[in-house]
Amino acid sequence: MTGAVPRRRGRPARTAADEGPGARERILEAARTEFAERGYDKTTVRGIARAAGVDPALVHHYFGTKDEVFAAAIEVSFEPALVIPAILGQGTDGIGERLARYFIGVWENPTTRGPLLAIIRSALTHEAAAKVLRGFVLRRLLERIAADLDVPDPKFRAELAASHMIGIAILRYVIRVEPLASADPEEIIKMVAPTLQRYLTDPGESSTSSPSGG
Amino acid sequence: MTGAVPRRRGRPARTAADEGPGARERILEAARTEFAERGYDKTTVRGIARAAGVDPALVHHYFGTKDEVFAAAIEVSFEPALVIPAILGQGTDGIGERLARYFIGVWENPTTRGPLLAIIRSALTHEAAAKVLRGFVLRRLLERIAADLDVPDPKFRAELAASHMIGIAILRYVIRVEPLASADPEEIIKMVAPTLQRYLTDPGESSTSSPSGG
Repeated sequence: MTGAVPRRRGRPARTAADEGPGARERILEAARTEFAERGYDKTTVRGIARAAGVDPALVHHYFGTKDEVFAAAIEVSFEPALVIPAILGQGTDGIGERLARYFIGVWENPTTRGPLLAIIRSALTHEAAAKVLRGFVLRRLLERIAADLDVPDPKFRAELAASHMIGIAILRYVIRVEPLASADPEEIIKMVAPTLQRYLTDPGESSTSSPSGG
Repeated sequence: MTGAVPRRRGRPARTAADEGPGARERILEAARTEFAERGYDKTTVRGIARAAGVDPALVHHYFGTKDEVFAAAIEVSFEPALVIPAILGQGTDGIGERLARYFIGVWENPTTRGPLLAIIRSALTHEAAAKVLRGFVLRRLLERIAADLDVPDPKFRAELAASHMIGIAILRYVIRVEPLASADPEEIIKMVAPTLQRYLTDPGESSTSSPSGG
């Protein structure tokens, strides 16, 4: 909290670098790195501003509070998830395998894995971060995915599928329990694909009672 | 680290309370509570000793380092898991449903849920805690479970099943994403049971290549 950037009074003196067309993107990139490396708790708007080379007031100007910067950084990290509706849109045949392959690919790639793990860690340890994840990203993403599914309780089904992939990521990449940690990705995909296929396409097993009507 | 318990030199002056037959159990209970409430990072041997009403040297005497106290506390939290081999021993018919029901029951009960969540949180944020969980508890538990399974790569299969239940716990109880967070436990069991059944009993899909031979 004892920032290297000197405090200024009144409106910040913005420079060309501050307001250049890349400032917003630099702030987002810095926020993503800071949240990933320091965790939700230790990340400050001031620290993000410093890493991005801008005045803290510009961070507030573009994004608002720390929670709102976090939400924006999360959205960037979830960008790979935006292709999920496209994957679903290719039809139900082999949808389980396509999704499993896609998820494992995202998790196998350190560039996309790092930010996702940082989000999960933050959400598990800070209710504020969990709230942002729950309300902001998951709701929107789930709504989009659920719209493409022809099963009862599509959001519930999508969450069951997501829960499996999140659990695998935690055991494989964070706790690194063997043999899962060293298993061939293809072996994981082969086992998991039928599970996702059933959750996302089989209408049979959720018909007698609905958890939410969602 | 500025403990209320005054530092003593040399051997601790042990009292009857210190060495009573319940001292070890009191220390374990205190450790479990401290790790659950403060997290791995902020828990100290000194704090555990204070909560148990014993000298820190007695904690070291019984358990050793902080990591070893953590391992012992984890073992207590994993005691409900010791019935899993018994569940598996009842035969393969309906094993998926029995296990799903058992897991959901453990997670629905706040007394058993709290310590498990604390362990997952610690393991996700501290490599030392992840190492203890990985090496100490999971290995032993997995060996016992794998011995009862008649499938290729039984540990890999058991980990896939565990990953699903851990992921559900995280989305339902920590991030509390809807509709999963409010779903009827029976609805979750109904959907998940066939998945666990397949992982733990269906030899079909892991036959061409083995991730580990485990």
